[in-house]
Amino acid sequence: MDRYPLLKRIDSPKDLKCLNIDELKQLAEEIRQFLLEKVSRTGGHLASNLGVVELTIALHYVFNSPFDKIIWDVGHQAYVHKILTGRREQFDSLRQFGGLSGFPKRSESVHDVFDTGHSSTSISAALGMARARDLKNEKYSVVAVIGDGALTGGMAFEALNDAGHSKTNLMVVLNDNEMSISENVGALAAYLSKLRSNPRYTRVKKGIDSLVRKIPWVGQYSANLIERFKNSFKYLVISGMFFEQMGFTYIGPIDGHNLAALIDVMKRATMVEGPVFIHVVTKKGKGYAFAEKKPELFHGVPPFDVQSGEISAKGEVTFSQAFGQHLVEMAQRDPRIVAITAAMPEGTGLVEFKKRFPNRFFDVGIAEQHAVTMAAGLAANGFRPYVAIYSTFLQRAYDQILHDVCLQNLPVVLAVDRAGIVGEDGETHQGVFDISYLRHIPNITVMAPKNIDELKEMLDYSLTMEGPVAIRYPKGNTGIDNIFPAKPLEGLKWETMVNGSDCCIFSFGRMLKVALEVASILRRDGISARVINARIIKPLDEQLLMDISNRINKWITLEDTVIQGGFGSSINEFVAAHQLPVSVMNLGVGDRFVPHGSVERLLRQLGLDSNSVAFKVKKFLSGYRKRAYVNF
Amino acid sequence: MDRYPLLKRIDSPKDLKCLNIDELKQLAEEIRQFLLEKVSRTGGHLASNLGVVELTIALHYVFNSPFDKIIWDVGHQAYVHKILTGRREQFDSLRQFGGLSGFPKRSESVHDVFDTGHSSTSISAALGMARARDLKNEKYSVVAVIGDGALTGGMAFEALNDAGHSKTNLMVVLNDNEMSISENVGALAAYLSKLRSNPRYTRVKKGIDSLVRKIPWVGQYSANLIERFKNSFKYLVISGMFFEQMGFTYIGPIDGHNLAALIDVMKRATMVEGPVFIHVVTKKGKGYAFAEKKPELFHGVPPFDVQSGEISAKGEVTFSQAFGQHLVEMAQRDPRIVAITAAMPEGTGLVEFKKRFPNRFFDVGIAEQHAVTMAAGLAANGFRPYVAIYSTFLQRAYDQILHDVCLQNLPVVLAVDRAGIVGEDGETHQGVFDISYLRHIPNITVMAPKNIDELKEMLDYSLTMEGPVAIRYPKGNTGIDNIFPAKPLEGLKWETMVNGSDCCIFSFGRMLKVALEVASILRRDGISARVINARIIKPLDEQLLMDISNRINKWITLEDTVIQGGFGSSINEFVAAHQLPVSVMNLGVGDRFVPHGSVERLLRQLGLDSNSVAFKVKKFLSGYRKRAYVNF
Repeated sequence: MDRYPLLKRIDSPKDLKCLNIDELKQLAEEIRQFLLEKVSRTGGHLASNLGVVELTIALHYVFNSPFDKIIWDVGHQAYVHKILTGRREQFDSLRQFGGLSGFPKRSESVHDVFDTGHSSTSISAALGMARARDLKNEKYSVVAVIGDGALTGGMAFEALNDAGHSKTNLMVVLNDNEMSISENVGALAAYLSKLRSNPRYTRVKKGIDSLVRKIPWVGQYSANLIERFKNSFKYLVISGMFFEQMGFTYIGPIDGHNLAALIDVMKRATMVEGPVFIHVVTKKGKGYAFAEKKPELFHGVPPFDVQSGEISAKGEVTFSQAFGQHLVEMAQRDPRIVAITAAMPEGTGLVEFKKRFPNRFFDVGIAEQHAVTMAAGLAANGFRPYVAIYSTFLQRAYDQILHDVCLQNLPVVLAVDRAGIVGEDGETHQGVFDISYLRHIPNITVMAPKNIDELKEMLDYSLTMEGPVAIRYPKGNTGIDNIFPAKPLEGLKWETMVNGSDCCIFSFGRMLKVALEVASILRRDGISARVINARIIKPLDEQLLMDISNRINKWITLEDTVIQGGFGSSINEFVAAHQLPVSVMNLGVGDRFVPHGSVERLLRQLGLDSNSVAFKVKKFLSGYRKRAYVNF
Repeated sequence: MDRYPLLKRIDSPKDLKCLNIDELKQLAEEIRQFLLEKVSRTGGHLASNLGVVELTIALHYVFNSPFDKIIWDVGHQAYVHKILTGRREQFDSLRQFGGLSGFPKRSESVHDVFDTGHSSTSISAALGMARARDLKNEKYSVVAVIGDGALTGGMAFEALNDAGHSKTNLMVVLNDNEMSISENVGALAAYLSKLRSNPRYTRVKKGIDSLVRKIPWVGQYSANLIERFKNSFKYLVISGMFFEQMGFTYIGPIDGHNLAALIDVMKRATMVEGPVFIHVVTKKGKGYAFAEKKPELFHGVPPFDVQSGEISAKGEVTFSQAFGQHLVEMAQRDPRIVAITAAMPEGTGLVEFKKRFPNRFFDVGIAEQHAVTMAAGLAANGFRPYVAIYSTFLQRAYDQILHDVCLQNLPVVLAVDRAGIVGEDGETHQGVFDISYLRHIPNITVMAPKNIDELKEMLDYSLTMEGPVAIRYPKGNTGIDNIFPAKPLEGLKWETMVNGSDCCIFSFGRMLKVALEVASILRRDGISARVINARIIKPLDEQLLMDISNRINKWITLEDTVIQGGFGSSINEFVAAHQLPVSVMNLGVGDRFVPHGSVERLLRQLGLDSNSVAFKVKKFLSGYRKRAYVNF
């Protein structure tokens, strides 16, 4: 820690308070070095954290956490907050099983007052806390820190609408880095960009004028941004008015890397009655040239070399890449294909599509609900939308999938990326619920490819279908080869991967690999296990199931999603519906949230690695209940 | 039809075009009479439709449906649209099984271009259609008609943000009736109210000035609203700027009952390039004094007497009323209790709570996502929020329940009203998915009372619990008496309603009544059926299940929700997990959407009435598969 002479003395936010402005600046530099050192080894969210170093220092300098409550929207930018709140020493364990989470966790520190992970929740949570405070007649500040990307999420607007009307003391700090995870989009982004070019904090509203008198130096600091100034009367008039109209006192824009400005503005803003909106302009990746240049690359980053900026890459082609590539090929042949993403063109593999078909590509921002219903509108008017969203984020569009797509049986294809266990991002990002929240919706077909060839086949097949389809695939790749010549999807049939007669394992996607390994282990013990690639989660391959029920009466379902309402549950329903004389064992994620860690480590933890599964299968096969039916 | 000399000649929107303005006005009057005559008999949405008579006539006069696309947000205000598009004669069957739907349905008419029912979807759908049109190089108008209440829903903002940036030709008509279903709330509502007091359509933006020159008479018509004028400089400046900032050309406000003004404005608005926002001010219930005075009473109304305005009321106390009353009693004793609704204080029974505890009551507007996460914030800061939302609308907060409430195991109680089959509102409103979308979420307890006494007990019990709880109850009442002295909920135990030994029926809520009837029918045939009130959907009463598995091997699960991932499915999972030697038959709503009709009629249709269930149970009991396990 000798590289960090100041930082090593900061064990809680209190230790900040005795530093002077120059020391705080030095601290900021040390934190940047610290972040680079640690994240380059563990991987994690880098660019967003480099961008909020000064902002976080200022917040903890001005406010008294945990007495004052700071809520981090999304939360991937909370590393600096963690460093300053006593968790510096744990950074070597970041995002590893049992180690420090990459997101705020109430269970981890009293300074983490609300768990986040998904976008646009912070203002709602902060408003709830502020209202609780008011009802208890307590006095402290509640601060939501939200990015400009997250601000386009509808629920942030719902919260602004309520908060602005509430007259409660609440501070919303907009961390405007001109992008969410990738380039920002939409009218609000354009508006913020206008604000950023405003040279002076000028208002026509009387109430605000008095505020300006109280904070006469605000314009001064924001004048740093003068190079963007475009001379136009309207900028003087509308500056911040969007937020004023929402009932907030708007202050900004402030240079988010000017510590003195940040501290002064926040101190004075605490004196404003009612909801305050502070517009802070930061640079993602600030202080690390490679990250400043390519912030989307250093958003969520694997380990990398600090000197060269080179990122350790696994050689494998990912499902996301293959999806994007294949969709380009399909789109060349079929002009009805359009692609939609919610602020994730890179993550979902759609960058090439965007380049090739700019008119047929729609990035709607962090707005999963709108993405899905807009797709329904396109489909209702003759197009074939492919909507690529991560499994965990698609949760936010559950109602739209059900009500706008499936109810009208519209041919929208959901490309559900990061399905199943995702790993290091932890509880808030695991894609373990999608089968349970999708398969009970009428009209939808749910598919899960075992490998990239099958993904391509499913994408092709989805184009021939007349209703909604979800194709779910894991992060990275499964590495499963086509053992047999792949059976065509025609008729939505399953595939027998291994023949066997003692028991039958039904699995799909990533877990099919585990199923194949289990079959090998069992074979050594003289047990012959059939392995079925249940690649169509819904509808089930009923004919195959009936066939197998005549031959094998011990069935195992294996998934890396929750058992409750999941794939195994659908097999149970089938067995019940047809009164099949079989016993079923459901293996999957139990009734629990899955923490962070590597996928491999988590599978072991959940008893879903091949050894654990083989052990359970053997127990299942030997423990056949001989007990006769009780006669009543 | 002699009362409707003009209306009877209107069989399609084309027939409107040859009418002059005075005839159109007469038509409006006839339509009002027609609505009153029909809806007073069938029940339905009255006030919202009386409010849009002129607006709908103007839309169909100016645009050429279905060539031009008109999308009705929520859709309960589409009766006039249905009357004008050839469905006048079917109004006697409104909302009845097999009859006319109360919402737009693509399957019903080519003029219904997008199915709606839930709020705030129309701009997304319209934008999708407009983009499809542009890609196909077609030329026609796409119009979304959205209420001021629906506009507060986050996804409407997501869509505005995208549409305003898109530069595509799209018309959003704001039907501003100063309320959603109940009184409107939030900053946006306050802003719209300011706009409504604006006497002149005045702008500072140059581009808009030229628009004003094109439409010089807009101010003239909106001057009707002059009585609301408050003299203030800022109104001149900010008029419509919120929507201008979102990238729309704003026109308004227009008197929504002035046919000539509406027609002229819309005609000229079609000439504006890019997205246009037309702000129309209407009066809910217009033309029917009782509905004008109490629009919330005549929102969704049962049959009523036109002359006296008296509404046929069933004498029974509803679950909603009982919930509201009991929550008031609880709140008197426990200051931690707060109540939250998403624009439904009347529907969810919270009016009294609002009066008694105005500071502890939060109506957030149509914003289910924010409602739930705001509740999480309150809970994280020591309060006990009760969030009352209809089952079908709670779908929109699925991610927030999972990610913001359950992940942190916060003591938020979801009062899930209108759970199960709801009836006349049809597909978009049936509460048949909530068990499937809730029970797979870790940490949540899901309860379903059989009657009002049990609801109260559950509410009391929920206050003693430390994690999230959902209490789901149907519309109206179940009429189930406490047969035995009710077993206390302590330990979340189930209740045996009827003893029996041949089979066991597990049910809950409304369906428990059917289960009891089935047991009576079976008894006549010499079959002794046990009936269990499985009032805790999650966690299961495992001890009772184990006990019963030792005595009875034929189990029936009975629910009026989807089987897929539902309650029966959780019993299947339990049977599989413990390898119980029992056969289970799952009865419930199949893999389909449930159309409109009376609850009773729909239960018959779904085979969930007592006779159908009894028949199936007998078949189940006699059809025991004697086939031995196949030896492999």
